[in-house]
Amino acid sequence: MAMKKKPVTGMKDILPAEMQIRDYVIALIKDTYKSFGFTPIETPCVEHIENLQSKQGGDNEKLIFKILKRGEKLNLETASSEADLVDGGLRYDLTLPLSRFYSNNANDLPSPFKALQIGPVWRADRPQRGRFRQFYQCDIDILGDPSCLAEIELITATTTLLGKLFDNFRVRINDRAILKAMAAYSGFPEDSFDKVFIILDKMDKIGMEGVRSELLEEGYGQDSVDKYLNLFTGTEQEADPIAWLQDQLGSFLPQGTAESLSTIMESASRIQSVPYELVFDPTLVRGMSYYTGTIFEIDMPDFGGSVAGGGRYDKMIGNFTGKETPAVGFSIGFERIVTLLLEHGWQVPGQMEKVAFLIEKKMPSDKLCQIMEEAANLRSQGRCVLVTTMNKNKKFQKQQLEAEGYTDFKEFFCR
Amino acid sequence: MAMKKKPVTGMKDILPAEMQIRDYVIALIKDTYKSFGFTPIETPCVEHIENLQSKQGGDNEKLIFKILKRGEKLNLETASSEADLVDGGLRYDLTLPLSRFYSNNANDLPSPFKALQIGPVWRADRPQRGRFRQFYQCDIDILGDPSCLAEIELITATTTLLGKLFDNFRVRINDRAILKAMAAYSGFPEDSFDKVFIILDKMDKIGMEGVRSELLEEGYGQDSVDKYLNLFTGTEQEADPIAWLQDQLGSFLPQGTAESLSTIMESASRIQSVPYELVFDPTLVRGMSYYTGTIFEIDMPDFGGSVAGGGRYDKMIGNFTGKETPAVGFSIGFERIVTLLLEHGWQVPGQMEKVAFLIEKKMPSDKLCQIMEEAANLRSQGRCVLVTTMNKNKKFQKQQLEAEGYTDFKEFFCR
Repeated sequence: MAMKKKPVTGMKDILPAEMQIRDYVIALIKDTYKSFGFTPIETPCVEHIENLQSKQGGDNEKLIFKILKRGEKLNLETASSEADLVDGGLRYDLTLPLSRFYSNNANDLPSPFKALQIGPVWRADRPQRGRFRQFYQCDIDILGDPSCLAEIELITATTTLLGKLFDNFRVRINDRAILKAMAAYSGFPEDSFDKVFIILDKMDKIGMEGVRSELLEEGYGQDSVDKYLNLFTGTEQEADPIAWLQDQLGSFLPQGTAESLSTIMESASRIQSVPYELVFDPTLVRGMSYYTGTIFEIDMPDFGGSVAGGGRYDKMIGNFTGKETPAVGFSIGFERIVTLLLEHGWQVPGQMEKVAFLIEKKMPSDKLCQIMEEAANLRSQGRCVLVTTMNKNKKFQKQQLEAEGYTDFKEFFCR
Repeated sequence: MAMKKKPVTGMKDILPAEMQIRDYVIALIKDTYKSFGFTPIETPCVEHIENLQSKQGGDNEKLIFKILKRGEKLNLETASSEADLVDGGLRYDLTLPLSRFYSNNANDLPSPFKALQIGPVWRADRPQRGRFRQFYQCDIDILGDPSCLAEIELITATTTLLGKLFDNFRVRINDRAILKAMAAYSGFPEDSFDKVFIILDKMDKIGMEGVRSELLEEGYGQDSVDKYLNLFTGTEQEADPIAWLQDQLGSFLPQGTAESLSTIMESASRIQSVPYELVFDPTLVRGMSYYTGTIFEIDMPDFGGSVAGGGRYDKMIGNFTGKETPAVGFSIGFERIVTLLLEHGWQVPGQMEKVAFLIEKKMPSDKLCQIMEEAANLRSQGRCVLVTTMNKNKKFQKQQLEAEGYTDFKEFFCR
C-alpha cells in the first residue's frame, strides 16, 4: 500500500533549518534556567485519562487525543460510550503532569523545588495557520515557596533568557487579589467576576469606552461601572499606582498583597541583567481560572502578542493531592519564539565552520582512508566536515549544501 | 476526584539526577553527529495508522498505542471493529516516520541526506524491569548514498560518540548478502533462510554444537549443516576471512560484496579516533527483515549486550514511496547507555559550580535586592546560584541540596 506522505492533520515535519533554531533555543533555555537552580524533569507524554479530565484543564479537556485501551481491556461489544474505550490521553499541557509528578516524587525532591520542563503537548484544535496540534511548551515552576522570592526568581530568570534573544520586551504584572478587590469595591457581585474580567481583558483592543459599553450592555449598574473604571483612570495618573489603589480599596484588598507586589517589582527592576520595562497593569487578567495570586505576562511591542505568561496557583496541587502546596510558574511561548526568529532570518550564533568533502565514486580504499583522516583531523579542530559522494550534477549539489551553511568545498577524484 | 499519582503503566517520571545525564548525552550526541554533517530533524509523535500498519514494522505493529478518532469522525454505534475507531497511533520507531518524512520533503533536502533523530517512541510491550513503554530512540541515517562511504561515516561517527562515554567496545560487522550466500552455498532452500538465521543468531549463546543440533532437529540435511558450519569454522581460522569466504562462495556471493565490506573495515579501522575492536562476524544476523546489505552492531563486553546496531535497507523507502532510495542507518540504544551511566555512578563532566543562597523569610525589599544582585553577579561568572527560602529545618534542607550537587551555601538573615 502506498504511504500517506503528509504528516497527520495539524502536525508538522520539522526541517533542518528550523531544527537548528529549536536546538539552539532549547540549549539556551536549559543553560539559563539551570544557572538559576532550576532542574530539568520529564513526565510521560501519555497521562491517565482520569487525570486529564479532572476539570483542571479548562477548555483543553475538550481537545484531548485519547488513547484506545489495549488487549483484553478493550471490549468493543460492551462499550457504550467513549469512556469505555480509552484509558489514557496525550498531555495537553505540562502543568497537570507536573502536579502528578510532584505528588508522586515530592519525597525525593528538595523543597522548595524548582522544575524546568520542555516538551511536546497535544491539542486537537481546529487547524489554522501557525497553530499546530503538536507543539512544545517550556515551563518553569517553583513548588513549595509561598514567598514572593519565587516570583522574583521566575521573572529574573525569564527576562535574562529572553534578553539573550530579543532586545525589546515588556513585563506586565498584576495580582488576582487586586483584580477581585477592584471588582468587589465597585459593587460587582462575586459570581459576576469572571464575566467582568473577560470584558476587562479586552481593554487593550477596545479601550476604556469599549469596556464601559460592554459592561453596561451586560446589565451591570452605572454606578458600579463608573466606580470601576475610575479606578483604572486613577492608576494611570498616579506615580505609585499600587499604593494609591491600596488606599482606595482599603479592606477589600487582602493584607500584604500590595506590599508583596511592590517588593516583586522593586527587586526585579533593580536587578535587571538586560533592560526591559516592568509595569503594573491592573487590566491584566490571564485566562486560567487556577491562578490565585500574582500574574504576569511578557509581550514584545515590535511583534505584537505575548511571548510568555504565568502566575501563582497555590490551590491546584492541593486539589489533586490533598496537601496544599504553594506554586508559581512561568510558561514561555517556545513555538512563538522559534517562529519569530525564523521569520526574521535570525542566524544561530557560534555555529561550527562547515566543510564539505565531495568524493568521486569508486574511490580506492587507501585513498579513502587518507581523506577520512583529513576529515577527522578537521573535526578535531572543531569544524563540521561532511564527507559525501559526489553527485553527477555537482553544481546543484554545491548549491544545496551552500543553503545548508557549507562555506568550504574540497573535491576528491579517484586519480 | 483524587488524582492518580503514578505514571501510566510502563512509563516513568524522570527525576533530576537522570535528566542531568540524559541532557548531557543528548547534547553530546547532537554535537558529535553534527560535526559529521548529520542534520537534526523531527517528525510528529503521532503517525497515520495506515502507515504504522503497513507491514514494515514487524512485531512492533502489534504494540501500537492507537488514537481515537475525534468529533464527527468517531461513530461508536456504527463501528464494528477497532479500525473504525482510530485514525492515528504513536510511532513505535523513528525509521518509519523517517521514510514518510523523506518522501514528503526530499525536494527540500540535500542529496545524500544525513539525518539525525532523537525522540520518544512508544510500544505497548509487557511491562518488565528496565523496559518502558515510552523510551527514546536515537538514529542516524544516510539516505541517497549507495556507496560504502555511508557505512564508513556511520561507523566512524558512532564510535567517535561512544568513545566519549566508554572505553571498551567492539563493532561487529556482516552483510546480509554474505549470510544468504553462505546458506545458499550450503544447500539450504531460500524459503528456509529466515529460520536458519534465527538459529544461527544463537551462536554466541549455544555455540557451534548447539546450532548444529538445532539445525538438524529442524530437519535440515546433514550435508547442508556440515557444509554450513565448516564455513564458520573456516572463517575463524583464516587470517583474511572475507577473502577466504569469497573464494569458497564463488558465484553465490554477489559481485562487489566482499570488496565493499573489506573497504569499510579497512577504512573504519585506520581512522579510529578512539581504540576499539572492529571484527567481521559471519554469525551476526540482526533481526529486522528490511536489511538488504551491510549490518553492524556494537557491544560492550564489560556490560553485556548491544548498545547500538544498524545496517543498510535499500528497499524500504522505495516500498513506500515508489522511488528507490538507498539508505543505511545506525540506532544507538539511548536508554541502555543512560542506564549504564546511572548504574555506574557516572558523573556528568564540566558541571557548573552550584551555590545556594538561603534567605530567611520576610527579608526586607532593599536587602533582597542586594542579595539578588550578588546572585546575578555570580551567575554572570558561570556559577549556578539557587536563591531560595530558608526552611525551618535548615540542616535537612542543606542535606537535600548537597544531594543535588550544591557545594557552597550562604545564609542571609533579616538583620
